[in-house]
Amino acid sequence: MTLAFLGPEGAVADPSRARIHFIPVPFDATTCYRPGARLGPSAILAASPHMEWYDEELDAEVWRLGLYTRPPLEPVLPPEAMIEAVRAAVSESLSVGAFPVVLGGEHSVTVGAVSALRERVGDLAVVQFDAHADLRENYQGSPYSHACVMRRIWDSARVRQVGIRSLSRPEMEFLRAEGRPPIWAREVKADCAGAVRRLLDGLPDIPVYVTIDLDCLDPAVMPAVGTPEPGGLSWDEILAFLRALAGTGRVAAFDVVELAPLPGLAAPEYTAARLVYKFLTYLFAPGPGRG
Amino acid sequence: MTLAFLGPEGAVADPSRARIHFIPVPFDATTCYRPGARLGPSAILAASPHMEWYDEELDAEVWRLGLYTRPPLEPVLPPEAMIEAVRAAVSESLSVGAFPVVLGGEHSVTVGAVSALRERVGDLAVVQFDAHADLRENYQGSPYSHACVMRRIWDSARVRQVGIRSLSRPEMEFLRAEGRPPIWAREVKADCAGAVRRLLDGLPDIPVYVTIDLDCLDPAVMPAVGTPEPGGLSWDEILAFLRALAGTGRVAAFDVVELAPLPGLAAPEYTAARLVYKFLTYLFAPGPGRG
Amino acid sequence: MTLAFLGPEGAVADPSRARIHFIPVPFDATTCYRPGARLGPSAILAASPHMEWYDEELDAEVWRLGLYTRPPLEPVLPPEAMIEAVRAAVSESLSVGAFPVVLGGEHSVTVGAVSALRERVGDLAVVQFDAHADLRENYQGSPYSHACVMRRIWDSARVRQVGIRSLSRPEMEFLRAEGRPPIWAREVKADCAGAVRRLLDGLPDIPVYVTIDLDCLDPAVMPAVGTPEPGGLSWDEILAFLRALAGTGRVAAFDVVELAPLPGLAAPEYTAARLVYKFLTYLFAPGPGRG
Amino acid sequence: MTLAFLGPEGAVADPSRARIHFIPVPFDATTCYRPGARLGPSAILAASPHMEWYDEELDAEVWRLGLYTRPPLEPVLPPEAMIEAVRAAVSESLSVGAFPVVLGGEHSVTVGAVSALRERVGDLAVVQFDAHADLRENYQGSPYSHACVMRRIWDSARVRQVGIRSLSRPEMEFLRAEGRPPIWAREVKADCAGAVRRLLDGLPDIPVYVTIDLDCLDPAVMPAVGTPEPGGLSWDEILAFLRALAGTGRVAAFDVVELAPLPGLAAPEYTAARLVYKFLTYLFAPGPGRG
Amino acid sequence: MTLAFLGPEGAVADPSRARIHFIPVPFDATTCYRPGARLGPSAILAASPHMEWYDEELDAEVWRLGLYTRPPLEPVLPPEAMIEAVRAAVSESLSVGAFPVVLGGEHSVTVGAVSALRERVGDLAVVQFDAHADLRENYQGSPYSHACVMRRIWDSARVRQVGIRSLSRPEMEFLRAEGRPPIWAREVKADCAGAVRRLLDGLPDIPVYVTIDLDCLDPAVMPAVGTPEPGGLSWDEILAFLRALAGTGRVAAFDVVELAPLPGLAAPEYTAARLVYKFLTYLFAPGPGRG
Amino acid sequence: MTLAFLGPEGAVADPSRARIHFIPVPFDATTCYRPGARLGPSAILAASPHMEWYDEELDAEVWRLGLYTRPPLEPVLPPEAMIEAVRAAVSESLSVGAFPVVLGGEHSVTVGAVSALRERVGDLAVVQFDAHADLRENYQGSPYSHACVMRRIWDSARVRQVGIRSLSRPEMEFLRAEGRPPIWAREVKADCAGAVRRLLDGLPDIPVYVTIDLDCLDPAVMPAVGTPEPGGLSWDEILAFLRALAGTGRVAAFDVVELAPLPGLAAPEYTAARLVYKFLTYLFAPGPGRG
Ligand SMILES: [Mn+2]
Ligand SMILES: [Mn+2]
Ligand SMILES: [Mn+2]
Ligand SMILES: [Mn+2]
Ligand SMILES: [Mn+2]
Ligand SMILES: [Mn+2]
Ligand SMILES: [Mn+2]
Ligand SMILES: [Mn+2]
Ligand SMILES: [Mn+2]
Ligand SMILES: [Mn+2]
Ligand SMILES: [Mn+2]
Ligand SMILES: [Mn+2]
Repeated sequence: MTLAFLGPEGAVADPSRARIHFIPVPFDATTCYRPGARLGPSAILAASPHMEWYDEELDAEVWRLGLYTRPPLEPVLPPEAMIEAVRAAVSESLSVGAFPVVLGGEHSVTVGAVSALRERVGDLAVVQFDAHADLRENYQGSPYSHACVMRRIWDSARVRQVGIRSLSRPEMEFLRAEGRPPIWAREVKADCAGAVRRLLDGLPDIPVYVTIDLDCLDPAVMPAVGTPEPGGLSWDEILAFLRALAGTGRVAAFDVVELAPLPGLAAPEYTAARLVYKFLTYLFAPGPGRG
Repeated sequence: MTLAFLGPEGAVADPSRARIHFIPVPFDATTCYRPGARLGPSAILAASPHMEWYDEELDAEVWRLGLYTRPPLEPVLPPEAMIEAVRAAVSESLSVGAFPVVLGGEHSVTVGAVSALRERVGDLAVVQFDAHADLRENYQGSPYSHACVMRRIWDSARVRQVGIRSLSRPEMEFLRAEGRPPIWAREVKADCAGAVRRLLDGLPDIPVYVTIDLDCLDPAVMPAVGTPEPGGLSWDEILAFLRALAGTGRVAAFDVVELAPLPGLAAPEYTAARLVYKFLTYLFAPGPGRG
Repeated sequence: MTLAFLGPEGAVADPSRARIHFIPVPFDATTCYRPGARLGPSAILAASPHMEWYDEELDAEVWRLGLYTRPPLEPVLPPEAMIEAVRAAVSESLSVGAFPVVLGGEHSVTVGAVSALRERVGDLAVVQFDAHADLRENYQGSPYSHACVMRRIWDSARVRQVGIRSLSRPEMEFLRAEGRPPIWAREVKADCAGAVRRLLDGLPDIPVYVTIDLDCLDPAVMPAVGTPEPGGLSWDEILAFLRALAGTGRVAAFDVVELAPLPGLAAPEYTAARLVYKFLTYLFAPGPGRG
Repeated sequence: MTLAFLGPEGAVADPSRARIHFIPVPFDATTCYRPGARLGPSAILAASPHMEWYDEELDAEVWRLGLYTRPPLEPVLPPEAMIEAVRAAVSESLSVGAFPVVLGGEHSVTVGAVSALRERVGDLAVVQFDAHADLRENYQGSPYSHACVMRRIWDSARVRQVGIRSLSRPEMEFLRAEGRPPIWAREVKADCAGAVRRLLDGLPDIPVYVTIDLDCLDPAVMPAVGTPEPGGLSWDEILAFLRALAGTGRVAAFDVVELAPLPGLAAPEYTAARLVYKFLTYLFAPGPGRG
Repeated sequence: MTLAFLGPEGAVADPSRARIHFIPVPFDATTCYRPGARLGPSAILAASPHMEWYDEELDAEVWRLGLYTRPPLEPVLPPEAMIEAVRAAVSESLSVGAFPVVLGGEHSVTVGAVSALRERVGDLAVVQFDAHADLRENYQGSPYSHACVMRRIWDSARVRQVGIRSLSRPEMEFLRAEGRPPIWAREVKADCAGAVRRLLDGLPDIPVYVTIDLDCLDPAVMPAVGTPEPGGLSWDEILAFLRALAGTGRVAAFDVVELAPLPGLAAPEYTAARLVYKFLTYLFAPGPGRG
Repeated sequence: MTLAFLGPEGAVADPSRARIHFIPVPFDATTCYRPGARLGPSAILAASPHMEWYDEELDAEVWRLGLYTRPPLEPVLPPEAMIEAVRAAVSESLSVGAFPVVLGGEHSVTVGAVSALRERVGDLAVVQFDAHADLRENYQGSPYSHACVMRRIWDSARVRQVGIRSLSRPEMEFLRAEGRPPIWAREVKADCAGAVRRLLDGLPDIPVYVTIDLDCLDPAVMPAVGTPEPGGLSWDEILAFLRALAGTGRVAAFDVVELAPLPGLAAPEYTAARLVYKFLTYLFAPGPGRG
């Protein structure tokens, strides 16, 4: 089955003529609570044609820039091999001048995307939206578990975390030792505009990779994740962050990960598809969205 | 199966002794993403007896005015025939002095209700709560699709739209040409009281029909719709609008449409039933609710 | 989204080089009990790549003959228009020498397929597997409802019914008047081989169209239909019929209709996909299956 | 909500003009594994109008005898009070000459029905279809649990059990001591006709009450029960028993209990409704069914 | 199956060495709309090990105080017997100096817990979070239904209600006569901090029992309850109340009741488990949470 | 959470006093169609206490031999590491004289169990019940995928396959070259007793390991597997094989794998638990079952 973002009518068949590349990674070997993230990419793609292609907030149609959806990456083991496959795919897209959007799959795929981007742009900031810190040294026998993803990236990129509300004491101690506290979910909910400002102020003036673990959102908005944590971001709150990040003009790629579809519920995958398209609109619409 | 709003104990068997008539229309021939709106009316009716009949906000029991539930309209094709059946049923209720409440079914049923009301009251305003503009000229071969319903009504009534957050470029251009922008969902969420005021200020002093496509609500509140769009109205926000509309004293009928029940989830149909009863309480409770 | 039977790797992109054409018809405007047949074609196609392409019973790989899957027909109303679209699509496949397989969608699509085939081959027998007679003159205001499909075909083709276990008295009286009793489900279950023989004995020596309403199967095997009737055919029983029909060498086309997917259950659509591929294998494998 | 077997069109409003009375008992206070039997009666009634009213096996329409559905009995506690309410309702139906059909609810409701029938007809045989012996002296603090129902009845009626495949050692010892082994499920499956004969041979020539715990059926046919036991009866097997029992002319009433609906699956309640109507047809159709 | 809060690794096997005792009560004999509260305790316990044991808001790990989970109480009937079993279990925990946390089960279990606490501490305040007043004199034949629980407690404890949005006229009249209006849900939503202050101001300086009917929360946050009422508390709002109540230093025990798990949805039971652990953290973390 | 087969009351806490050891392996890293086999072991264990401990077919209570359930093996990657963990656990059980029952998890766990057994008993026969041959050389980048499990074992044990109905051409060619055709599912269904005899006749007189991939069963009986294939074994058919295998007195260990629970359906895990207990009863009951 070949699925494309916005469906075949909205898609470009020739990758070299597309400004935006979607890279589906149907992989979830290490998820623990509720498996199924490997079904996330196809669910997002299958929901996407039900969206309008026009965005009324910015009066824009970014699909006109050309959307190309790769065939899904074949899942392989161990996670290191999967990460390498993601790295190669992102690298290929970057090499033809396309903007890569990785659709997970579990969070560990981010390691590959960040690695490809570092090779190309050098110093890199990574903004992580997540309920969890994902800073474990090791988890269930693997240093490449989804629960370790940001620890793997930490030393090679400037990581900034948003929406965190669940972590272990060792993770907290690591953050204290590093002197880089997250923007907690409760800070966002108490003062979203202030939290957005703090994020931008702390961002170095270098290219930015954005990784969106969908469990950053509140379970009311996004129940279809492996570990739904109450007290999460609302739709408006995440959009405020994405709008501001797009406004920096420095976002070089992003991923949306950890969707584990719930049979019978259409809202989660549709919401994920809309989030992807909204971010793309903020990033590529000519005009007020760019700043 | 004969279902009645609030169940048989809350119902009046003789329609001529009921102030309020419920008209179930189990029809969804044109829905595209997730079918099932034809099961909406019976789900709302079946959920309704689990509500309290007393409303604590207004200290009222509007069921005492007499509630009569028609047998469900038989679904027929093409959509024009269904619309005509709705028109006839609403007309019949109006002719005995009852207040009609249409329970959809897909949004196209509104055309019939508006047509019946126009015959009786002449000039008419229509307030539409919806995530979508529903202003397509034609959709999937039919000008009477749910996606075209407001276009069919546009010329015969003063349409005012609330909660919109998804439309096509041609629909946007139509709205621009007509000079009647909607009250966007994001405007409601930024300043609900202001949005309510804007709606009332723009309403001409004529009878009002209210059509509530349940997808105007946020999917967190109402996941059981064909196309759940994130960023929608909260329960408090829609109530603020309905309270204010009731306060004008000019609401002549309303519908609640597009509920497509999700097996196993009781909250959506219960929420829809409560919405219907809340609006009726605002409309018919003696006292502060009337303005 | 473009789905293909057996997925893109098993598909032929050029219809003129494919021996077999799949025609998805996502349509269910007239279904009454449990809607959703419009989601059937995509569910069958999405399940199909999980099958083995090799059939061990006949030691065959019929995909090598070339499988082409049309884009799904756009659903239109009224049903007559949908039927006409099916007729045109089937006709087009026949005109290039391909064998058409229609994937419903509700049963009314059969009218279009039969009509296309009659134009090409003249006299036609139609073998219907179904729990229901589908012989109503009219149903819910339409003579083209799924409940009327065989009545529409009756006069233009030699209809033979298998698996029936639910019909109205008028339908029974019609069958008595016509002198063509069905092969009842209970006859199949009491003596399957005998029932197969009776079917073949009664079949005139002309081309045969086979229509498989999946509710002919027992709900234990196939719960994902609009009206699941207990006492239906088992997997082995339906295969016995299809094997025998293929053995006549006169089957000219077939359809599989009325799959209404159940969220969370993979077995029904997988079973439907296997049924399609099994029948194709019986029809096209060189050797013992042909007779 | 007022539900009626076959729906309002098939129902008789005046109980005194109905030959058959349906008594819904939405009660499941003592179920242990998967609750929900209290939702069984309304599910059966809601499914029933989707059946054909005509039975093709016996060429009969037993609805013409008059079907009346009582309002559901109000659930009360303790179980003894519920049982007494069932007794009173069944007694009332018997006193006007109607044939009572009790729709459970959990199995404990049978005690009330048997008690009402004994008052009227004296000596009574009870045929129980069940996966479980239900012969515990006491269960979870109550002698009126569903797991004790047949023990409560044992001394006042001649109990005969069919389909058993799960019981405790003390229940087995009780049966041995009493010298009344059940007809095990595996005996039915090995030789159904023989098992039917053995049942009839052992039945005394007195009025018969039939209680059908739906878990007697195989989970493939009937997954919607509290404790689904593999190795159960097929649709054909239970019909063979019911046909034979009807043939004795001595069945005085029956119940169908323990349906716990599964959200999203229509087949179980539809199957239960068909079972009820099939048994009624065997009992009341003029002709070959009676013997 | 033995389940423990936080799982066996987080549990203490010897109750006398645990500061906190969990008492699971899998009971729901009187629930009316959607049964299943009897499955609530095991769902909360099974979800709990997926939480982090560390709380980042208070920088605390209250599990170090020792968590002991009793085997679930055996469900018994009538409700009075169940209530007595709860009383005995809570009493036992109190007698060894442990802090009892009752996990329901339906709301009627609260009567037993309050009774045990009154025996030990004398005058008692009860703070109830609930969508419903639960003040009926009698419901479905039992004065111990979940809908009567606060009426049973009213005279022996100072009841304060929060989050109410659904009650009958007689309940309203009772509250008026008693002169103790609830803190309505809409008051919380309009001014949460003010509502918290009003609650604390009105609380007498005596020990406090807190009962949390999960339907106090909005259905978007907590759909898995018997009667989900729109317009309920958000996650932040309930935490604001619990934080403040913990700050009084007078909370002596609490319960969380009415979770009726929804198959396939992990968020509700996880949210309930987090709520329990959050409240315990507010109660037992050294530092700012205590006041 | 610590789950035990038959629950804590049926369990033995000290492994050295238990004749039977259950080894749960919640692992499914390589499953492709529908993930979730990692949830299988806990589902089987959680369902098991709802069974009767007494078996009426053999009049036996094998739980009296002592049942011990290990804590679940921690899932690790790559599959080789998981397989090694299974090997170690099975070895440990064998070394204390216990009979190991492995509960999967995906089919690849069998490699570890067979390896442990070979170390202890030398020459070994393996009887595989499965819909699939699982004889791929390599699958999705791993030679230890569930689709390769029997190929890994082939050279070190005498493999005999039952119930196969889906395989690739290369797998078929491998079987032909090896001269060891499976007992096809259709052969079982045509003549079960003959198929059982053929299996026994072909079994060398050495210890036997039995691996039961639950997809050997028909989807009607067992829908909760990753790839449900129609045309599978019935409950009676698999029992006939297990009864006969137990009768050889040479079964040394077994596994039950590939259960992927379906939320809301209790029958599949209950059926799996019953299958495990039935096989144990055939193996360990004194008397007619042993042969
Ligand atoms: Mn996360
Ligand atoms: Mn993450
Ligand atoms: Mn809409
Ligand atoms: Mn609309
Ligand atoms: Mn049919
Ligand atoms: Mn049909
Ligand atoms: Mn039973
Ligand atoms: Mn029973
Ligand atoms: Mn409540
Ligand atoms: Mn309550
Ligand atoms: Mn398999
Ligand atoms: Mn296998």
